[in-house]
Amino acid sequence: MADPLSYIDRELPRFREELFHFLRIPSISARSEHDADTRAAAEWLVGELRKAGVEASLAETPRHPAVLAHWSGADDAPTVLVYGHYDVQPAEPLDEWSSAPFEPEVRDGRIWGRGAADDKSQVFLQVKALEAILATRGALPVNVKLVLEGEEEIGSPDLVPLLKERRAELAADHVVISDSMMFAPGQPSLIFATRGLAYFELDAEIGRTDLHSGQYGGAVANPANALAAVIASLHDDVGHVAVHGFYEDVAPLPEELRARFRALPFDDAAFQQSAGGAELVGESGYTTVERLWTRPTLDVNGLLSGYTGEGAKTVLPARARAKLSCRLVAGQDPEGVGELLRAHVEQATPPGVRITMRQLQSARPWRSGTDSALYQAASAALEETFGVPPVLAAHGGTLPIAPEFEDVLHANVVVMGFALPGANMHAPDEWFPEAHVGLGMKAMVRLFTNLGAMAPS
Amino acid sequence: MADPLSYIDRELPRFREELFHFLRIPSISARSEHDADTRAAAEWLVGELRKAGVEASLAETPRHPAVLAHWSGADDAPTVLVYGHYDVQPAEPLDEWSSAPFEPEVRDGRIWGRGAADDKSQVFLQVKALEAILATRGALPVNVKLVLEGEEEIGSPDLVPLLKERRAELAADHVVISDSMMFAPGQPSLIFATRGLAYFELDAEIGRTDLHSGQYGGAVANPANALAAVIASLHDDVGHVAVHGFYEDVAPLPEELRARFRALPFDDAAFQQSAGGAELVGESGYTTVERLWTRPTLDVNGLLSGYTGEGAKTVLPARARAKLSCRLVAGQDPEGVGELLRAHVEQATPPGVRITMRQLQSARPWRSGTDSALYQAASAALEETFGVPPVLAAHGGTLPIAPEFEDVLHANVVVMGFALPGANMHAPDEWFPEAHVGLGMKAMVRLFTNLGAMAPS
Repeated sequence: MADPLSYIDRELPRFREELFHFLRIPSISARSEHDADTRAAAEWLVGELRKAGVEASLAETPRHPAVLAHWSGADDAPTVLVYGHYDVQPAEPLDEWSSAPFEPEVRDGRIWGRGAADDKSQVFLQVKALEAILATRGALPVNVKLVLEGEEEIGSPDLVPLLKERRAELAADHVVISDSMMFAPGQPSLIFATRGLAYFELDAEIGRTDLHSGQYGGAVANPANALAAVIASLHDDVGHVAVHGFYEDVAPLPEELRARFRALPFDDAAFQQSAGGAELVGESGYTTVERLWTRPTLDVNGLLSGYTGEGAKTVLPARARAKLSCRLVAGQDPEGVGELLRAHVEQATPPGVRITMRQLQSARPWRSGTDSALYQAASAALEETFGVPPVLAAHGGTLPIAPEFEDVLHANVVVMGFALPGANMHAPDEWFPEAHVGLGMKAMVRLFTNLGAMAPS
Repeated sequence: MADPLSYIDRELPRFREELFHFLRIPSISARSEHDADTRAAAEWLVGELRKAGVEASLAETPRHPAVLAHWSGADDAPTVLVYGHYDVQPAEPLDEWSSAPFEPEVRDGRIWGRGAADDKSQVFLQVKALEAILATRGALPVNVKLVLEGEEEIGSPDLVPLLKERRAELAADHVVISDSMMFAPGQPSLIFATRGLAYFELDAEIGRTDLHSGQYGGAVANPANALAAVIASLHDDVGHVAVHGFYEDVAPLPEELRARFRALPFDDAAFQQSAGGAELVGESGYTTVERLWTRPTLDVNGLLSGYTGEGAKTVLPARARAKLSCRLVAGQDPEGVGELLRAHVEQATPPGVRITMRQLQSARPWRSGTDSALYQAASAALEETFGVPPVLAAHGGTLPIAPEFEDVLHANVVVMGFALPGANMHAPDEWFPEAHVGLGMKAMVRLFTNLGAMAPS
């Protein structure tokens, strides 16, 4: 009987061409001018799934369609739902890419391009793992469903309504979320907690028109100075967020977990290198791993006011804008944090300036237990593939849908991914390890096999 | 004998066409792509001066040429040097103009367009006042020189070297600076003090590349938050600049002048209207007039960091930039203020961030005495033209060359202009009162006549 693992090795050159085709589609969900590209990426996935022998179709939403697929021939074997996303972040700043973001290249054993790590390669390897099993064995060891959405990078606004609407159709015992990274090269990980997100836009304004800083400077407020004052007031001197009540709902971290995190061989130097050389600093009293996995943050994501071109322009701007966001941890609620921030901003706004605040995105934090059959099967699959057991890890970014899958489908959720630290997700020069395309497929083949060998849940 | 005042009335329609031609030239000195336009504006002026009967030529500089002109037929009558500038500010934000910035229009008795007030109409009326006298009388009552520069909006970097190099050629008894506004409609003014400027660019950086705020947020500094903290630290709670030593060199204002300023019929409501509705707030303990004329400021002119497009992008930016500038008053030195600011920024920079500071522009503040023959002649000329004596006023913007003319040429300097408050200099919808084109010419004819009637200085 043919072996799916050998099939993967044999078909890798073709897989690479197919992945490159997928990476070339600029499916930037945040940009309406790319709506057709985003749809094209979804349609391409439907075609690949059908070719593999999986039923697939588009589920329309008010924004970008989700790809839904299923293979249901495994009778009373458990059902595994795989989640990923085919949309990508905008590619700006374009001039900081070493090669064009939507013209993928392999250099130094890495596939470079927007979406290489987040999340196209990881979606792709799920599809091709199914193809490998079906092409060699004619059937999967478990029932499989896929939900591949096109709105992850804009906060998944339509995913939860879709899950709720199709709750019966998507019913599953296990959910595998395929949108994450390993702890280190050669060191796979299973992620049991992710941070949430509350994203805001603040607009400070003094009047209708930009002014001459000589004619008006000193006699009216400056919205950029005012916005800077408000932003500065959001932290205290030792890096704590100074918004009243911000930490009140943070769930305490079990001391055992904290000790495990502190004991991890986290490579500060490599992490700093991956951060473009940025010095490692943060909230006092915590290690880098704790800051990333267990502590909420408040970061400015964008600033814009007045004249930003070459040279000097003596303008007193009429308005200033900041985008800022909080990473949240278990216990915190994105909307509740928004209310706390709104109260703080109102109180901190200087005279003569109006500041309006809009909450652009919300994503819940997530933390799960780690003793399910799914965790055991996944752990074994990773150890068989990489030769070492996975690290039990958390994740600083959001996976907004992890808690939703738990809540809506009452399924166990595991997060298992194959990107590496420093992958430049959301930044120029994003990459994914070329070898992990095949290794990821093999790990998924083994995970399905392990789950199929277990008793029906 | 023909009368220059009647000549002006008769030729006004032609003058308007000529002025519109001048306004259509986008002589934006800050933008290298407009260098040819900037030169074209200078060459146009040379042509108009020659047609009027004044010798004129370009004086090359490393950037944009100055127009130098002279008429020297008045024997031992005094020599008056007139200064103006033919360059203009950039026109952005373009979508906030009611009509295109370089397609002048008359609406509501106002000429609308970039440079209408600052300073093309005011340069133009100088040239045509000379034409009016020479065309009707064949000679001027005084010797006249003109220095019309093309670099005022980029801080006049080459003007002082030019003045120094041509000190003998430009020798004059009196200097009239034609680049200012009246106190109010129907209320001319003579300006005896202007604020200086020190303009800076601050670049905050943590590393080489933008980061994912989930992957790195909390573990590295945020340059935008850091820059906001530094900017916030530059003021205290009551609007005073908190940079150590900032006020130390501010020359005390004579109590008599302060009382006059406080007694002026300054129209706060009209001023607020002209400021696009911005609320009037500022340093505690001073009136609006005092804040504008007698107090130094520190304003942000521009902010740029991270993602500023539509929607949300969860980027942790690698860098953040602020443009900021101080308006300075008599006694303060732009370079000295730069040193004070540099020391403050170094001390206020949070850990994990590098901030570099560049001083982009410097302009000295200026304050003169008000009892010279020039002030008397100008005061009389304005009263004859507008029917009321001028207000002795200061000016919140810079005229960097006022103190330089005093120092280099040892001449009396008066600043006399015809724009009106709310002219939107440096902002969209800049305008100049159409009637002031002719009134300004007549005031200049009378000023020359008054000075010619005085004893040689």
